[in-house]
Amino acid sequence: MSTKHLPMEEGKLLELARRLPTPFYLYDEKAILENAEAFRREFSWAPSFRDYFAVKALPNPAIVKLLAEKEGFGCDCSSLPELYIAEASGVKGRGIMLTSNDTPVDEFAKALELGAVINLDDISHIDFLPSLPEMVSFRYNPGPERTGNAIIGNPVEAKYGVPKDKIVECYRIMKEKGVRHFALHTMVASNELDAQYIVETARMLFSLVGKIHDEAGVRIELIDLGGGVGIPYRPEQERIDIHYISTEIHKLYEEMVVKKHLDPLGISFECGRYITGPYGYLVSTVRHVTHKYKEYVGLDATMADLMRPGMYGAYHHVTVLGKEKAPHDHVYDVTGSLCENNDKFAVDRPLPEIQEGDVVVIHDAGAHGHSMGFNYNGKLRHAEYLLHADGTVTMIRRAETIDDYFATLRFPGAPVRI
Amino acid sequence: MSTKHLPMEEGKLLELARRLPTPFYLYDEKAILENAEAFRREFSWAPSFRDYFAVKALPNPAIVKLLAEKEGFGCDCSSLPELYIAEASGVKGRGIMLTSNDTPVDEFAKALELGAVINLDDISHIDFLPSLPEMVSFRYNPGPERTGNAIIGNPVEAKYGVPKDKIVECYRIMKEKGVRHFALHTMVASNELDAQYIVETARMLFSLVGKIHDEAGVRIELIDLGGGVGIPYRPEQERIDIHYISTEIHKLYEEMVVKKHLDPLGISFECGRYITGPYGYLVSTVRHVTHKYKEYVGLDATMADLMRPGMYGAYHHVTVLGKEKAPHDHVYDVTGSLCENNDKFAVDRPLPEIQEGDVVVIHDAGAHGHSMGFNYNGKLRHAEYLLHADGTVTMIRRAETIDDYFATLRFPGAPVRI
Repeated sequence: MSTKHLPMEEGKLLELARRLPTPFYLYDEKAILENAEAFRREFSWAPSFRDYFAVKALPNPAIVKLLAEKEGFGCDCSSLPELYIAEASGVKGRGIMLTSNDTPVDEFAKALELGAVINLDDISHIDFLPSLPEMVSFRYNPGPERTGNAIIGNPVEAKYGVPKDKIVECYRIMKEKGVRHFALHTMVASNELDAQYIVETARMLFSLVGKIHDEAGVRIELIDLGGGVGIPYRPEQERIDIHYISTEIHKLYEEMVVKKHLDPLGISFECGRYITGPYGYLVSTVRHVTHKYKEYVGLDATMADLMRPGMYGAYHHVTVLGKEKAPHDHVYDVTGSLCENNDKFAVDRPLPEIQEGDVVVIHDAGAHGHSMGFNYNGKLRHAEYLLHADGTVTMIRRAETIDDYFATLRFPGAPVRI
Repeated sequence: MSTKHLPMEEGKLLELARRLPTPFYLYDEKAILENAEAFRREFSWAPSFRDYFAVKALPNPAIVKLLAEKEGFGCDCSSLPELYIAEASGVKGRGIMLTSNDTPVDEFAKALELGAVINLDDISHIDFLPSLPEMVSFRYNPGPERTGNAIIGNPVEAKYGVPKDKIVECYRIMKEKGVRHFALHTMVASNELDAQYIVETARMLFSLVGKIHDEAGVRIELIDLGGGVGIPYRPEQERIDIHYISTEIHKLYEEMVVKKHLDPLGISFECGRYITGPYGYLVSTVRHVTHKYKEYVGLDATMADLMRPGMYGAYHHVTVLGKEKAPHDHVYDVTGSLCENNDKFAVDRPLPEIQEGDVVVIHDAGAHGHSMGFNYNGKLRHAEYLLHADGTVTMIRRAETIDDYFATLRFPGAPVRI
């Protein structure tokens, strides 16, 4: 069984875990940037290429800024606070895509102020725009034409996007209103490891670019293939083949875009998980090992730090520092301390024998990890650190305190003093 | 179809919803207190009776204090912040039960300082106690002897509690260490509507009280039947019959406790949901009505306000203010604005025709509602209000602001200014 990549030599990581209060999140700067660059390079054939990093995956401006400055990434934002994160990270204009649904007007207003591409979720949202964006996009929902996948569900059941019978009309209306620049977006899968599925999404959008051109007289300048590019959470899974995806999309581009004089057409994604997911680690200390009807390892981290196993039953790989090569001859449930029986990072997981004080690393926590944390049971969310190439670390988010937890209970006239 | 109880006449609630920024939580003080009192009264036969209100269900000190002062409720706490809430609410000593698992030592220390009953989750936790509690309890896990239910899972698979073969030993050890007062706790079901199940839990604990007495020479003074008393989320469900539960437990008490000279034995629960659940309302405004492959009602509330439908697929009743008696001849998915397709309060729900600006009430949100909220997608958590008997309202928690959301990104030396 693969032990997955670790951001530094085990001994050094252990030293770090002894020095910093656990649990904490650690992100590997070098690996994130190398991965981002490799992704970008695969698409160097495209007239323009950009990943709009899905801010929701890892809404820390230190990460967003890094990706923007070093790799030219943009931001896919889904709320007002995420637009502020983009702004603080130095991203603006067409570097920002507002992909929101059931959108409040103040989000549109802030996105307009920043010059963002506004990706409308519905034809009816047109009338809620406070003014015309420089570039407008629509999120396309193909409905029964695509099957979606287990995580995002079937497009026909999804709350997102403009259905097939209205998509051309949307562009016609915006053109009449005077918008001059257009994009087209879709998001039909989540954590997909089938490369061909992503290629088919490109085929679908290229075809639609042609249809919108023919029927509405609108030239699309940019497509956004959405996120959904998966990562191998399980050691036996393979990485998705980005080279294959890029090569196949390039062929389709020649056939369906260049030959039909629809080029240049910018290519973009809104990948978050694919960029940072494998390079984030939740580092935790074993607080208790208990022997009940089963064997339990209780960590100082909880589902307040990482919700995916509890919410989705998702697999996250677990390793024990210094014991990677020890025989995995024990079977544990690895739990947090919430009074919720789904507060388990792993169930029936073969692991080396574990002692109290051991340091456990939960892998692939670099996306939809810290950002999904809650405060249920009065649990606090923990700090985030960035590991630099030279082995030094920078705190990029402090841990929550009890005072943070009580902040909304303290206000003038609050009935109880706490 | 029942329209469920509303805390005030529809017109008045609508007026409130126009006056206060939606979404907000509203708790009905009068109904909560009447319910708490009725629960307490049913058990007036018991030598002592207390509900340790499960703070996690509604961790607002204004509510906790109300229940403590008016109805003599205690607090079941599962973390350090919840112990602080108990303290701020004026609850102390045996009024507090610390029911924690995978417990950090600082929780034990604070609970000891407050004189709380310490409910240990495991035999190995004994050695982690900084000092001896005045009263100690153990959480019993019956394993294969009980079936649990769908929500909490089978006890044998649950991470909680002391298994059958170790429970007597736990008391023996604590007696030897010099502890003088003992309690016994279990929690084997969650949101259970079968009254007989709760009665069987009492039978199980009464039997164990006898066994612990016989085998360890320890007299248990208090049993805690746990929470798990359910509420009818669906209109076609019936309320659980507390009178039946109390009557049957009383009979068992006479047979199994009094006749065996094990009395007086205090009876307690740790109900949260049963006490406040039905009397909390998430009040929200319709932001968008969209027609896609299905019909969608987009609210200004999201799963950040109420996680149960998204996390558990739980049913919450939905009504539209002023339209309770209108024909329910439309079928909607009622959604929030997260970029998560499980951000739906209701799927395929028959409702009256809905317009933008309508006020939607999500029922039975008085427990495990606000407290489970997260900030995913940059969503903020909203305010909580207490509705008094005279129709006035008090804010008991302010809404989160973007500054709250950014609080942990702002610290000396933070790499990005936001």
